[in-house]
Amino acid sequence: MSENQDKHIASVRHSLAHLLAATVVEMYPGSKNSIGPAIENGFYQDFETPEPISEEDLPKIEARMREKLKTWGKFERREVSPEEARKEFAWNPYKLELIEDFSKDGQQLTFYVSGDFTDLCRGGHVEDSAEINPKAFKLTKISGAYWRGDQSKQQLQRIYGVAFGTPEELKSYLDMMEEAKKRDHRKLGQELDLFVFSELVGSGLPLFTPRGTVLREELAKFAESLRAGSGFERVSIPHITKTELYKVSGHWDKFGDELFLVKSQETSDQFALKPMNCPHHNQIYAARPRSYRDLPIKYFETTTVYRDEKTGELGGLSRVRSISQDDSHAYCRRDQVEEVVGSLIGDVQTLYGTLGLPLRARLSFRDASDKYLGEPELWQQAQDVIRTLAKKNELEYFEAEGEAAFYGPKIDFMATDALGREHQVATVQLDFVQPERFELEFTAEDGNPQRPVMVHCAILGSIERFLSVYIEHTAGRFPVWVAPEQVRILTLNDDKNIVDFATTMAEQARRLGLRVTVDAGNESVGKKIRNAELMKVPYTVVIGTKEVESGQLVPRVRKDIEVHTEHDPRTVDEFLKTVVHETKSRVSKTSL
Amino acid sequence: MSENQDKHIASVRHSLAHLLAATVVEMYPGSKNSIGPAIENGFYQDFETPEPISEEDLPKIEARMREKLKTWGKFERREVSPEEARKEFAWNPYKLELIEDFSKDGQQLTFYVSGDFTDLCRGGHVEDSAEINPKAFKLTKISGAYWRGDQSKQQLQRIYGVAFGTPEELKSYLDMMEEAKKRDHRKLGQELDLFVFSELVGSGLPLFTPRGTVLREELAKFAESLRAGSGFERVSIPHITKTELYKVSGHWDKFGDELFLVKSQETSDQFALKPMNCPHHNQIYAARPRSYRDLPIKYFETTTVYRDEKTGELGGLSRVRSISQDDSHAYCRRDQVEEVVGSLIGDVQTLYGTLGLPLRARLSFRDASDKYLGEPELWQQAQDVIRTLAKKNELEYFEAEGEAAFYGPKIDFMATDALGREHQVATVQLDFVQPERFELEFTAEDGNPQRPVMVHCAILGSIERFLSVYIEHTAGRFPVWVAPEQVRILTLNDDKNIVDFATTMAEQARRLGLRVTVDAGNESVGKKIRNAELMKVPYTVVIGTKEVESGQLVPRVRKDIEVHTEHDPRTVDEFLKTVVHETKSRVSKTSL
Repeated sequence: MSENQDKHIASVRHSLAHLLAATVVEMYPGSKNSIGPAIENGFYQDFETPEPISEEDLPKIEARMREKLKTWGKFERREVSPEEARKEFAWNPYKLELIEDFSKDGQQLTFYVSGDFTDLCRGGHVEDSAEINPKAFKLTKISGAYWRGDQSKQQLQRIYGVAFGTPEELKSYLDMMEEAKKRDHRKLGQELDLFVFSELVGSGLPLFTPRGTVLREELAKFAESLRAGSGFERVSIPHITKTELYKVSGHWDKFGDELFLVKSQETSDQFALKPMNCPHHNQIYAARPRSYRDLPIKYFETTTVYRDEKTGELGGLSRVRSISQDDSHAYCRRDQVEEVVGSLIGDVQTLYGTLGLPLRARLSFRDASDKYLGEPELWQQAQDVIRTLAKKNELEYFEAEGEAAFYGPKIDFMATDALGREHQVATVQLDFVQPERFELEFTAEDGNPQRPVMVHCAILGSIERFLSVYIEHTAGRFPVWVAPEQVRILTLNDDKNIVDFATTMAEQARRLGLRVTVDAGNESVGKKIRNAELMKVPYTVVIGTKEVESGQLVPRVRKDIEVHTEHDPRTVDEFLKTVVHETKSRVSKTSL
Repeated sequence: MSENQDKHIASVRHSLAHLLAATVVEMYPGSKNSIGPAIENGFYQDFETPEPISEEDLPKIEARMREKLKTWGKFERREVSPEEARKEFAWNPYKLELIEDFSKDGQQLTFYVSGDFTDLCRGGHVEDSAEINPKAFKLTKISGAYWRGDQSKQQLQRIYGVAFGTPEELKSYLDMMEEAKKRDHRKLGQELDLFVFSELVGSGLPLFTPRGTVLREELAKFAESLRAGSGFERVSIPHITKTELYKVSGHWDKFGDELFLVKSQETSDQFALKPMNCPHHNQIYAARPRSYRDLPIKYFETTTVYRDEKTGELGGLSRVRSISQDDSHAYCRRDQVEEVVGSLIGDVQTLYGTLGLPLRARLSFRDASDKYLGEPELWQQAQDVIRTLAKKNELEYFEAEGEAAFYGPKIDFMATDALGREHQVATVQLDFVQPERFELEFTAEDGNPQRPVMVHCAILGSIERFLSVYIEHTAGRFPVWVAPEQVRILTLNDDKNIVDFATTMAEQARRLGLRVTVDAGNESVGKKIRNAELMKVPYTVVIGTKEVESGQLVPRVRKDIEVHTEHDPRTVDEFLKTVVHETKSRVSKTSL
């Protein structure tokens, strides 16, 4: 969308906020409108009303808005004196307060008049109400709001609307919202039995059920296998440390009051829960002398860090206090930065490619200011390497000057999900400062000590946050390799031969490493199939007398999965072999 | 050893403490002996000395003891009055204090006289010093000790000795101690680069290097695979919780002051680091309604708990604050206890059998007291089941009445290591109380709610503590499947063909999942082989022109590994295939 288009749709939304104010004040006598701006995708307006308006009222308000819109005409601007303004809004204490504020600052007050409605406003409307498509807006919801956002002040009602240039755009937005609601990972987390919260454990601290743990593990294993393939070695650290560690790293000064502090009741040691892993990993590097021949030294670990966030959204994984990271740290020579960063970019591309999430990269570079630590030529060299690699790896990227951390440039990856929403995911961060602070060294070829360059990288990032994205991206229809339950075997009835066949098949599948269940319950096959569908199981196999006698079966494939071959009957062996193959090669479609 | 033998050797050790006192007082005029009992394997005696005695002095003290022993004669008992005792020990303030204490209680004071030496003592000596074999004792070390163990009192010197019935027994004990010193896991941890400690992170908080992490992971994976094979499902929980969870579980009252407390700086929530996992796992169970058909529900997880222990032994894994457990919890019906416990016993036997650690089991049962919670008939049934299973699984076991926890009976497993030392390892614990406290339920076949029985089990127990045992058990010579580095490929020289061959072979091995390194350094082959031996690598392969030309090699096998076939040359493929097979089937010997 061009800048002009952006500006125009914002003025449409702002104008609709006026129309909404006029309509409510007319329909609910005694109502007082306060403020109402354009926002992303729409607008809102805050009201004091004699009695509450409910969501059921929105359609009739909307209808009346359309009615009024026909005769609404032009938006006419009028400059007024404070006295005139006070007189006009004697009925509305909110406007009076604004008038006082604006005139105190010596601002010129302006009214905008359209139809029969006058509002105190700075402008930013359409010229003529005819520019507003009456079929391209919709009121969506009501919530509470405080006057001027201050909890000690009057509570108001806020009515939200969405608005677009065309009815088609509105429809596609509403469809997307509808789909997003269906895919809400909190809802799916409950329906698919993936994770739970407990009031006794606390908010922001999810507990993963067996099914949710499969998701975590399969995704983490994938990220780990990419690291292992690039020569990273797994290490293992405790979740706490004496706060001294963060005094050396510098995190104590910067983030000390965001830490979870841990108190020993036995000793006077002051501990903290780790909010990141690098200082711990540095202690492993620092424990031995290192030579230029040993580098790059590459550590990885999937481990949980703790951040003491005010948990806004409860019951979800988007923002949690226990954050599991697939974290890695490489310590390398300057001449190895390209190789190390390049292989990490490749790993990021492989993972998100496999998961079907297209990537965009932001190269966060320094600007000319002097807030950056580390030698300028090292920065220059590193940024050149990053840019070269972005091109070489055919990344869709843009450069963001001034966005680098003070300790080094980085690459941030954003993934676009199936609903077109973009999420910050992986990061590759260079660090010139921690090696200094921890006095990390290696003996260079000339025998002198040198500082390694550190490269931090998380591919999944926070596994919890990633799951909130991935569950909504897939709508819980996980590809076979990720699916908590890959195959469900249903029995047609309780005939012993049938149940035995199903049980034997399940045992065979489990020996092959597959995640299989048997539903040999008393319900009808129709009900059993429906249950399997509700749990979004990729493959369902019904076992009846025919299957027992022929040893052949026709697997039912979950609807969303693209099927490459015909649904011919196949033997149990053939079927299981296919599922094993699809799991191992992490395919998202099926060759059945 | 019989009870009589035990008693006799204890009296020998006690008598030697007298002889040591007599000798030191004679050799170091002005010295004052205080107390000196028999202890496990020997004895000690505490002294105040005019100047410090050093370990170098021990041989000459020992020689003088042997000299005196010749004329030491019988131990003669004499009852004395407090006055007489005070007079005799006017020179020794420690004895005077003891005399006051004993006479205050109205005890009869006794002297024991042997040779020229008189001591205040209650008895427990040999009849005649001739019963002491002069070649079967040895002074071992000196340490500091406070009079009456009180840090505010006089510091004394404590001299330790060991003593046995025969010189052979003494030798075998000293050899074992010598071997134990060589195998000390703290020493091997450093030499084999397995784990490190950092002063910045804190004591009792080990950081595992890549090599140590392989050990942890391979052992944990084995324990996990056994669980998975028995139908346990992996779950995942955070490391912290609101303290409310432990108020419900009852742990707060019992262990509240041993917890690491975690303070949020953002909210008023009071958290704790989890010292166990069951209450968290219970929250997953409790999150959904459960039916008798769903049971047993079995969760497992390898996760770290934190216990705020005063860390006595620094630098080791025997006692740490971050304890990684291979923990599991099964929730079952009463009629399923036998199946659940039986399969866990089988898993414990499989793991320790594979690791070459023979097991003994203690069945900890209730006694007749009323301190136990839960229905008596449930206890009876469970204990009968445990006893039956112990027999059926051919466990070497004994019953310990009164050793059960108040909430249920348990099986403790003890493993004997290569030096004959016994270590507490796995536990299977029944629990009738937590299901009550957390109101855990399932719907029984009759539609009524019932409480499940919980079965806690850790097979490795604390992985850190287990590693301290296993490193010493194996002396760091880990079997192929556990070895951090399974194969080291050495190049004869820097010939390009040779280096290429080695590199290609390493890549092939890595693709097969093996842990392989290449040493293509400039050192001599002899030095390279020595280096590989120091790191206790199971297989070393030297690549020279002959190997490149023939494609055949003769692997060097680590000395301790029992070899089943001849050392014939074999192809790279054959060799790697064998190592993969040995890894997958976790063999401790080799078929090479």
